[in-house]
Amino acid sequence: MKSPPFEPEVRDGNIYGRGTADDKGQMYMHVKAIEALRSADGTLPINVKFLVEGEEEVGGESIAKYVAENPEKLKADVALVSDTELFADGIPTLCIGLRGLVYLEVESTGPARDLHSGLYGGAAPNPIFGLVELLSKVKNANGVIQVPGIYDDVQPPAPAEKRSWKRLPFSEEEFRLKEVGSSELTGEKKPSVLERVWARPTFEVHGIAGGFTAAGAKTVIPAKATAKVSFRLVPKQDPEKVLAAFRAFVEKHTPKGIHFEVRVLSSGPGLSVNPDHPAIKVAAKAFSDILGKPTVFIRSGGSIPIVGDFDTHLGIPTVLMGFGLPDDGLHSPNEKYHLDNYYKGIMTIAHFFEKYGAA
Amino acid sequence: MKSPPFEPEVRDGNIYGRGTADDKGQMYMHVKAIEALRSADGTLPINVKFLVEGEEEVGGESIAKYVAENPEKLKADVALVSDTELFADGIPTLCIGLRGLVYLEVESTGPARDLHSGLYGGAAPNPIFGLVELLSKVKNANGVIQVPGIYDDVQPPAPAEKRSWKRLPFSEEEFRLKEVGSSELTGEKKPSVLERVWARPTFEVHGIAGGFTAAGAKTVIPAKATAKVSFRLVPKQDPEKVLAAFRAFVEKHTPKGIHFEVRVLSSGPGLSVNPDHPAIKVAAKAFSDILGKPTVFIRSGGSIPIVGDFDTHLGIPTVLMGFGLPDDGLHSPNEKYHLDNYYKGIMTIAHFFEKYGAA
Repeated sequence: MKSPPFEPEVRDGNIYGRGTADDKGQMYMHVKAIEALRSADGTLPINVKFLVEGEEEVGGESIAKYVAENPEKLKADVALVSDTELFADGIPTLCIGLRGLVYLEVESTGPARDLHSGLYGGAAPNPIFGLVELLSKVKNANGVIQVPGIYDDVQPPAPAEKRSWKRLPFSEEEFRLKEVGSSELTGEKKPSVLERVWARPTFEVHGIAGGFTAAGAKTVIPAKATAKVSFRLVPKQDPEKVLAAFRAFVEKHTPKGIHFEVRVLSSGPGLSVNPDHPAIKVAAKAFSDILGKPTVFIRSGGSIPIVGDFDTHLGIPTVLMGFGLPDDGLHSPNEKYHLDNYYKGIMTIAHFFEKYGAA
Repeated sequence: MKSPPFEPEVRDGNIYGRGTADDKGQMYMHVKAIEALRSADGTLPINVKFLVEGEEEVGGESIAKYVAENPEKLKADVALVSDTELFADGIPTLCIGLRGLVYLEVESTGPARDLHSGLYGGAAPNPIFGLVELLSKVKNANGVIQVPGIYDDVQPPAPAEKRSWKRLPFSEEEFRLKEVGSSELTGEKKPSVLERVWARPTFEVHGIAGGFTAAGAKTVIPAKATAKVSFRLVPKQDPEKVLAAFRAFVEKHTPKGIHFEVRVLSSGPGLSVNPDHPAIKVAAKAFSDILGKPTVFIRSGGSIPIVGDFDTHLGIPTVLMGFGLPDDGLHSPNEKYHLDNYYKGIMTIAHFFEKYGAA
């Protein structure tokens, strides 16, 4: 880490800090766009309501409840959210598809207390190993999820959408080197990298903890171990159905002497936005006007649960107009936001409001 | 935890605290036995040298070095170590076999930095999942280690030894309920529980850590994950050979995009002591005199590396005369030592010294 996460620092044309790109910096562009319009015109071209919250990364339950309970107060024609990125620097990008997320905690228990592995190893169940056995079965070495039924409702991207992805300036090798930084990329063999991260369900282990983890050696068989895991879902997959399938899978694959408890930390479906919606068309034009290139339509592999809440409770589409860059390092040390895009974002948002008001 | 680990507390006829049974309490019996003999007789029936150290649970490297470098200073006919237990309360027990231990740390790395699982999940290697894949392959669901060659040098216990184990007052159900506390026992199907924990090699995961483990949800693909694991070895298994076999296994089973590093934290062979050695025979008689029952010979599944050092560098056998109880909870919260056995231990040790001096 080059600078502390909660003390923003400007260097090399970027602002560094946790949330600069995801999503405090992007949210603040909206404030500045409104300020710019008001100081230039004394008024706004459209009615604007702000809805700002800071709990998305911890489940975002409060805002989901608030939106569900206040449809009248939040009545609108369209929502604008800046929580996505440009496909590459300089390319105006609208996101029209998001993956959903079922985030779970799995707790594995076995012996009544921590045991000495010399005296009990060979006869006592080991909750870490039990958890390892379970998790290893959820996904095979090619990234294919092994939970029965999980692919039932997965629809392939439309041929036109796949064709448009092929035209995007994307290099697997650059993605591997500059973004992932691993010796190889992994995952399903047939789908392309973009299809794998945008339009395929995945299973990941985000955290695991159990037993003795300090420096040195302790020969313990611990009483419990825990993992945080998630399924990313694509549109049409039902989170409840996925959860039920996983619970059945866990039950079937529980080793002797081990007990698993599955706790749901958050759950939301994948989403898609119709690119022919009038607001999306205006947004694409406004974006293109400011950046000087045709707007591309992509998906994101991430999840923005509020978009589903707007759809369900307010019945409105969401324009996902974001200005991050692929190497911003979201959720990582040294997260950054490119200042040039921050200013272009303010201009694009203001221009979108003007054009949408005139439409 | 009923009382703090480093503030010993006497209740219900026991002394509670970390190390009361393993092994500060047992070491102290030797001091008190010498004190008793000197105050009764003004002298000792044999020459006694003390060798006390406190690093066994963190690898014990200093004492191994010290013994290797000071064979003249430590010259003796026999070593006496109290770091084992009575097979059951009231039964005089000498331990004549110990398992060895190869304790390792496995570090799994993949991406260059922590990644957002939404944006990269499906294409980026996940070091936690890579580690889970590897560990799951080391041992099958029946506890059989899958590393090729690992059972090559494992010798079954002699028929006479197995017969004597069958005569021990041992109930699997009581062992499961009172000691392990799990819903079932696990491990290899054919060997008995005693054989599994005393005379079979095992693989255990002692600790695992990686990614996000605090409360709540964070959708990260971490850059690394670590596990602490060990192989328990039986006599005749060569720790170096086991380590080499495991390294080859790790290399063969490294998933795409993952790098594993295996670090050795400690390594020592299993050991056996000849029950017909004169010192063992005297010890068995002395033990039996004090507790009023015939002495039984057992093995322990744990490892006491110093016994191997005495054998290698001093060329002497070790009498493993311990007074712990199976439910003492070594390495666990609420570790205890039964005070009655503490006093009987002092008497037995003093009596052994007297008889060994007279022999």
